[in-house]
Amino acid sequence: MLIVQKYGGTSMGSIERIRHVAERVLRTRAAGHQVVVTVSAMAGETDRLIKLASAISDREQPRELDVLLATGEQATAALLAMAITAAGGQAVSFLGHQIRIHTDSAFSRARIRQIEASALTQALERDQIPVIAGFQGTDAEGNITTLGRGGSDTTGVAVAAAIRADLCEICTDVNGVYTADPRICPDARLIPRVAYQEMLELASLGAKVLQIRSVEVASTYRVPVRVCSTFSEEAGTMVVSEDSAMEKVVVTGVSLDSNQARITVSGLPARPGIQAELFRPLGEAGVVVDMIVQIPPVDGRASLSFTVPLTDLRTARDRVDAAAQRLNAGPVLSDDDVAKVSIVGVGMRSHSGVAQRMFELLAQQQIDIMMISTSEIKVSCLVARRYGEVAVRVLHDGFRLAEAPAADPAAG
Amino acid sequence: MLIVQKYGGTSMGSIERIRHVAERVLRTRAAGHQVVVTVSAMAGETDRLIKLASAISDREQPRELDVLLATGEQATAALLAMAITAAGGQAVSFLGHQIRIHTDSAFSRARIRQIEASALTQALERDQIPVIAGFQGTDAEGNITTLGRGGSDTTGVAVAAAIRADLCEICTDVNGVYTADPRICPDARLIPRVAYQEMLELASLGAKVLQIRSVEVASTYRVPVRVCSTFSEEAGTMVVSEDSAMEKVVVTGVSLDSNQARITVSGLPARPGIQAELFRPLGEAGVVVDMIVQIPPVDGRASLSFTVPLTDLRTARDRVDAAAQRLNAGPVLSDDDVAKVSIVGVGMRSHSGVAQRMFELLAQQQIDIMMISTSEIKVSCLVARRYGEVAVRVLHDGFRLAEAPAADPAAG
Repeated sequence: MLIVQKYGGTSMGSIERIRHVAERVLRTRAAGHQVVVTVSAMAGETDRLIKLASAISDREQPRELDVLLATGEQATAALLAMAITAAGGQAVSFLGHQIRIHTDSAFSRARIRQIEASALTQALERDQIPVIAGFQGTDAEGNITTLGRGGSDTTGVAVAAAIRADLCEICTDVNGVYTADPRICPDARLIPRVAYQEMLELASLGAKVLQIRSVEVASTYRVPVRVCSTFSEEAGTMVVSEDSAMEKVVVTGVSLDSNQARITVSGLPARPGIQAELFRPLGEAGVVVDMIVQIPPVDGRASLSFTVPLTDLRTARDRVDAAAQRLNAGPVLSDDDVAKVSIVGVGMRSHSGVAQRMFELLAQQQIDIMMISTSEIKVSCLVARRYGEVAVRVLHDGFRLAEAPAADPAAG
Repeated sequence: MLIVQKYGGTSMGSIERIRHVAERVLRTRAAGHQVVVTVSAMAGETDRLIKLASAISDREQPRELDVLLATGEQATAALLAMAITAAGGQAVSFLGHQIRIHTDSAFSRARIRQIEASALTQALERDQIPVIAGFQGTDAEGNITTLGRGGSDTTGVAVAAAIRADLCEICTDVNGVYTADPRICPDARLIPRVAYQEMLELASLGAKVLQIRSVEVASTYRVPVRVCSTFSEEAGTMVVSEDSAMEKVVVTGVSLDSNQARITVSGLPARPGIQAELFRPLGEAGVVVDMIVQIPPVDGRASLSFTVPLTDLRTARDRVDAAAQRLNAGPVLSDDDVAKVSIVGVGMRSHSGVAQRMFELLAQQQIDIMMISTSEIKVSCLVARRYGEVAVRVLHDGFRLAEAPAADPAAG
């Protein structure tokens, strides 16, 4: 098999761990596979560099920040290549510009457009192990770009797609994807197989195992992804196309996102286009709006509630206050004491009553639901933050996620 | 004027210092000059990275080491560009590959072949201040290369040559080039003007103000270089083509190199080519031989003494022992307790008796001379290391270097 292995910051966190990874890579090689590796910066390094940049300049300077941040992965790529060669392999490092990881010019959150695989395939033909600096690329003008938090996941999957790898392994510090966060639910169970669509929902809902963009790329190019631990030999979780076995499970997992804040605007004049006028300034400020709920108008005035990331609350509130004044609406209220709890599963498509069951389970515990949002394969409820973890445990128990599915052929 | 400013590791040593450099750059800009900047890594960073690499691998892996080391200057280039922009300027960073600093493939000691100036001149036309990561380049295959210790000096001078700058300022932590090391000779005097040839000898003799290669490039392309302090406004030392004023001074400076060791091989069969056979293994091991003295053969057997850098003594000794055995020569002796003291001056060419005066001054202090080597503009003597500093002071006094030259129009 041709395997791309991505190692995260914790796996690169010290000299000893880099050596351990080198041995792990060589074991895969010795098992007869071809291996291409991509790496994150040492744990903590990106934060250290961001702090340096903030100390130097109040102003955001995205182009230069990306030049600075890209050094983290450049260093680990070189170190891991050295470690592999020192352990008897033949490795060669590649930076974003050396294998032409072309991206757009959206510094700090660039998207990969194309990867020229020729340098990698030539290295593989020479029996070398390419070690790619993750997280970085170059735009059409040759500027260094970075792909955003967790961007090395996307580098791994995109490289796997470019060289038509059989598998992309995301080697991290957890054993795989669980039915819930094991720190919240001690009886959470490892999910052996999960569909791209479920993983997308889980990733976006706060299960921070994979960068969401990497799942999109994996789904588009049908790259099989295995999430597994660098520090164990367990099989982990396969992220693959939906298959018939999966549909037998109604709810695959429960996730919690405590990084949420709610804003409510009342007194909105009920006329077409009012929502666009309200949200345009948020989009311009780069604030991502998540759940949106609107109450039907009373006396020609509507109320609208939505959630934004907690860190963006101040920016969002400023913009919304200004918009509300312009629109002659108000008052505007905000609440930073909320959390979003969600259940996800491709099986929901063919089962009714799942949302109803969720509401009942929360009601039995007297947990008040502030907002509800649903998609084909997920139901999310906004609750007070202090009830977030309780809600996860209640739902995990209520949907019996700790028990292995009755007949799951994928578990074998 | 179009000025290239190079800032060393001490000048980049902290957030505060980087801010100070940003202001210094903007003052030059405000004085009406066009400025291009190049930077070293933060003081200590290159050593830190080398230690990481040694911890990872016993084997030298020059290609990967250069990828690792290049991160140091990448970080400071980004940080200084941010600092300049934050202080009200418009700066943009450039890495070696972005302005195509083409080098050969001699990793860790690459030589610049060419620089494509177009990206820099375009930035200048847009009224931007380019900040170039020093010390790094790329070879014909796109591999990252580095230029060796002090390589940012060479980046500065080579960039100045490529864009036909009027001046290259080497901004460092000393005020300029002195007649002797002020820590050894408290009355050492700043030299206002020094010829490229003198600077070459001074650099190679242990006055570590400029990388020797940068002086070669400056001399070849006639780039006027100013060595000055980042932390003062003093004029520093101009390194320029030899002019008539300089010839009036016989001795320009005294230098000391305590990083020397001596190896003596006796019993060498006196036949043609014997020296080549002895030194070939040293060249292959990358050991640079400095002074060489040979005693005429007695009974068909010759003795030969030479010096090598102290850090290479062990390697050199191993190679020489093996060669001596092969050549049926010996015994081989080595002495790591030596220092080389030298006097330098373009005026020596037209003055006789300078070497004689040096020998007399050392003899008066009972300092034994072990080896002598001369060039057109320099005389070097090897002495016991404990006498090195005394010798410097004796020569500095004896040649009256503390006194300003009687009629030096360049001093005005």
